[in-house]
Amino acid sequence: MKDLLKQTLLYDFYGELLTSHQKQIYEDYIFNDLSLSEIAEQNNISRQGVYDLVKRCGNILNEYESKLNLIEKFEMKKSSLKKINDLVKQYRTTGDDSLLQKIEQISGEIPDDL
Amino acid sequence: MKDLLKQTLLYDFYGELLTSHQKQIYEDYIFNDLSLSEIAEQNNISRQGVYDLVKRCGNILNEYESKLNLIEKFEMKKSSLKKINDLVKQYRTTGDDSLLQKIEQISGEIPDDL
Repeated sequence: MKDLLKQTLLYDFYGELLTSHQKQIYEDYIFNDLSLSEIAEQNNISRQGVYDLVKRCGNILNEYESKLNLIEKFEMKKSSLKKINDLVKQYRTTGDDSLLQKIEQISGEIPDDL
Repeated sequence: MKDLLKQTLLYDFYGELLTSHQKQIYEDYIFNDLSLSEIAEQNNISRQGVYDLVKRCGNILNEYESKLNLIEKFEMKKSSLKKINDLVKQYRTTGDDSLLQKIEQISGEIPDDL
């Protein structure tokens, strides 16, 4: 599955904006790895119908992200915490003061709009 | 203006999902502090029309947050960074090792879904 991480993030962020029908089919295809034919049969719709629905869901999720850019902002923040976690561990073994400065700097970089 | 901080956050997060017409009127009323009558006159619509539009925009923004809860998650992350920033400053004056442990703990608490 191509780009599964990105699809997972998009779905985590914006999935609740899909209908329950859309969610069920999108999940079956993307995350539960069912085939188009299997999903078509279970839901009594055509294989093409499933394909179109999955594609449309992907487009909807992408459109929300292209307007809101929240995943991008979130990932930045997450990586700040991860970096701090690494730095504090390094500091505890090395005692290198410059690591503390870095932690202070990273934790102080909070964009106004977040 | 009641709850201006909340309205600002909602608008920062989800404002791009409003139409440009909605955005313009919502901004004029909520952030630029124009009166309903002033906005009505400028846009050649009724005072009631402006009121309804502003109320509807507020509802739209609130609905997105009630489905997605992204502001809530974002604020948690922001407050983690703020707390770390305070703790590292305290550590640099006191050298108290337990503060480092707290920093490590907070920076390691990254929910899987974020």
